[in-house]
Amino acid sequence: MATSQTAKIPQAQRMFDGATHKLDVWTIFTPANVPPDAINLGQGFMNWSPPEWITQGSHQVMDEQVMSHHYSHPRGRPRLLKAISKFYSPQFDNLVAEGRELTNEEIVVTAGANGGMFAALTAHCEPGEEVICIEPYFDQYFASIHFQGAKPVFVPLHPPTGEGIKDGSEWTLDIEQFRAAFTSKTKAVIINTPHNPVGKVFTKQELEQIAKVCIEKNVLVIADEVYDCLVFDGKKHTRIATLPGMWERTLTVGSAGKSFACTGWRIGWLIGPPQLTSATLAAHSRIVFCTNSPMQEAVAIGLEQAKERHFFEDQVAAYQERRDILCSYFDQIGLSYTKPEGSYFLLVDISPVKIPEDYPIPATCQGRGKDFKFCWWLCQELKVVGIPPSEFYCDEHVEIGERFARFAFCKDPELLHAAGKRLLKLKEFL
Amino acid sequence: MATSQTAKIPQAQRMFDGATHKLDVWTIFTPANVPPDAINLGQGFMNWSPPEWITQGSHQVMDEQVMSHHYSHPRGRPRLLKAISKFYSPQFDNLVAEGRELTNEEIVVTAGANGGMFAALTAHCEPGEEVICIEPYFDQYFASIHFQGAKPVFVPLHPPTGEGIKDGSEWTLDIEQFRAAFTSKTKAVIINTPHNPVGKVFTKQELEQIAKVCIEKNVLVIADEVYDCLVFDGKKHTRIATLPGMWERTLTVGSAGKSFACTGWRIGWLIGPPQLTSATLAAHSRIVFCTNSPMQEAVAIGLEQAKERHFFEDQVAAYQERRDILCSYFDQIGLSYTKPEGSYFLLVDISPVKIPEDYPIPATCQGRGKDFKFCWWLCQELKVVGIPPSEFYCDEHVEIGERFARFAFCKDPELLHAAGKRLLKLKEFL
Repeated sequence: MATSQTAKIPQAQRMFDGATHKLDVWTIFTPANVPPDAINLGQGFMNWSPPEWITQGSHQVMDEQVMSHHYSHPRGRPRLLKAISKFYSPQFDNLVAEGRELTNEEIVVTAGANGGMFAALTAHCEPGEEVICIEPYFDQYFASIHFQGAKPVFVPLHPPTGEGIKDGSEWTLDIEQFRAAFTSKTKAVIINTPHNPVGKVFTKQELEQIAKVCIEKNVLVIADEVYDCLVFDGKKHTRIATLPGMWERTLTVGSAGKSFACTGWRIGWLIGPPQLTSATLAAHSRIVFCTNSPMQEAVAIGLEQAKERHFFEDQVAAYQERRDILCSYFDQIGLSYTKPEGSYFLLVDISPVKIPEDYPIPATCQGRGKDFKFCWWLCQELKVVGIPPSEFYCDEHVEIGERFARFAFCKDPELLHAAGKRLLKLKEFL
Repeated sequence: MATSQTAKIPQAQRMFDGATHKLDVWTIFTPANVPPDAINLGQGFMNWSPPEWITQGSHQVMDEQVMSHHYSHPRGRPRLLKAISKFYSPQFDNLVAEGRELTNEEIVVTAGANGGMFAALTAHCEPGEEVICIEPYFDQYFASIHFQGAKPVFVPLHPPTGEGIKDGSEWTLDIEQFRAAFTSKTKAVIINTPHNPVGKVFTKQELEQIAKVCIEKNVLVIADEVYDCLVFDGKKHTRIATLPGMWERTLTVGSAGKSFACTGWRIGWLIGPPQLTSATLAAHSRIVFCTNSPMQEAVAIGLEQAKERHFFEDQVAAYQERRDILCSYFDQIGLSYTKPEGSYFLLVDISPVKIPEDYPIPATCQGRGKDFKFCWWLCQELKVVGIPPSEFYCDEHVEIGERFARFAFCKDPELLHAAGKRLLKLKEFL
């Protein structure tokens, strides 16, 4: 094969590879690479199916409606656009104040929230521009920004210090540090609330401070709110798009996968003013043309019936129970953690754990944060998979993240108890 | 909204807009913009559902398997990868000669064939590089190439002249013109066979000539073979990847939508050597992370059972009947056409049709090929929607395409007869 065509990774991908030199955390801790009997609290997918009333409803649509199998409008199917408008409009205080609902022109249904954020960044970022991400950040942001030839700029949340149970509000953004991250090239800011992996729900006051800077600097805000239906203890999720001066500059990202336990359906949506959604729709329709039709119908059923079925209220209660089960084991072990106000992740301070110094660590985990070593050891020895959150920090800030490990509690109580019992063995390593 | 954030279309999008200045044909002839009682032979979707044995099978999987609702591996679900390997391996003569089947590393399941080609171009094309497309070309190529900052270069097929029924083989590629289109910047060539909209199935001899130049110039070949299961009259579809020296430089694109009448499921796949699929997988996993899971399971069922059910043989017979129904009306009218050897499109020579000179044409169709005027008039007056194929040519070559109109025959016989009867009125305008 002397003349073989070699794969040439484009500039953006090379920049991305050059910036990481590392295997991604999902590949390192993928089920095939960990002991088969390990309990997986790593990747954030549920070990249950979406509600039967949704799946049975979608079977019926697929059986009865030919067009549920064919191309959708790139913007989304009429039934889903209507369901999104009905469900979300009352949650946007600015629309309520205007006495109106979301129009079709303010919504784009995308190939998952991931595909939506990629399309938004493709539509709005030019090569050389900068996008500010708050650390820890969801790792796909990094790649999605680099693929545009743009540059991610990181501003860390500062974690609480000392022992004991922490609150999300104790993870603080230094607003002057945030402001200092802006340059003449800054195009956009990504704000994730409820936050993965911290579980922090940004307060209205915090978001007002952020909004003030974003307005002053005249940047686009991508509000990743995919965990918006998972907020605990009666706390309130504030949408940054609803703050004064923010609607016209904000794209809010939603996810059916997180809302209805169907991470593999790949249905997400973007909500924002027409001047922001139209360019995003243009990109989306070129990238994938349209989002899959049958699952759009299914998600429409979910949003249409959620309220009368008290679906989200019940789901929040169930998740809160799951959160508390997992937390109870760390209480018994005596490890500090941030009690999640939202999302389905628990961030545990693993700095007191002493793993055997000579424990063999694969090359993929070497030269990285201590949390990589811990998580590798944990899945091999205690047979519980967690995710090292230093993956979600730039090299410069790895030391902030390496104190922690992330555990997903989007698993049924039985599995969480089983994992918790294995984790109790950590007491021997304190 | 003095400080409102304006949407900024990135460089590639601006280049794309700058290159077209035009509304795309799908928007102009979308159902909302044509008379509601028009029969739609425009966009290529079927007016029937995929087979019940597939949809019922997929319902069962969704009811019984929790993980059918959750994230798939970005490469694709194990069951579908296996089904693709079993189904396609015997169709790749090079693999048969090696006595082996496709490995997982030689397949990527994508968000439709469209998402697959976008990912392949993202992975392999750098800004400033050139991609050769044969005209008429599927219009999404144009945007997908421009979004990489790359440049499409067009080489036309030369249509047959004179009246009567034409054969796909009469649309010829001037191989010296093709060779002359290469520059030092040429990165890839897109070859579409069976061809949309001509219905031409490239012969082995034609593909050998193309392959020889591609090997000599050492370029990547993207073989868009989404209509591979729709070849008529016992003709043989040759896969360019199977020719000597081509496997290592070719990504072959497939589509469940075309194969199983489910254009809205958004399941496609790429087949090729690991050195080409690995970069494509990296791009795909960042663009959408993974392809939707439930429909991957459904397509696996389709591929697993297609052979024993003689599904594709029966489907080809049904399409051939549909083709012949539509052709019979143009025979009665007395308009020349290219008899499709494959795909589900019929290209009709409309140059003898005289539409009223003063017929009002909207701005969207003005300053474009005569076929735009014809198709607009046709859908308004005869209530049949066709597509003007000059959309699939660069400005320089519009006059090649404007002689024709494209009609999709992926519709049931009843609808085709109804459309045909309306089309008979064309006799009054010859």
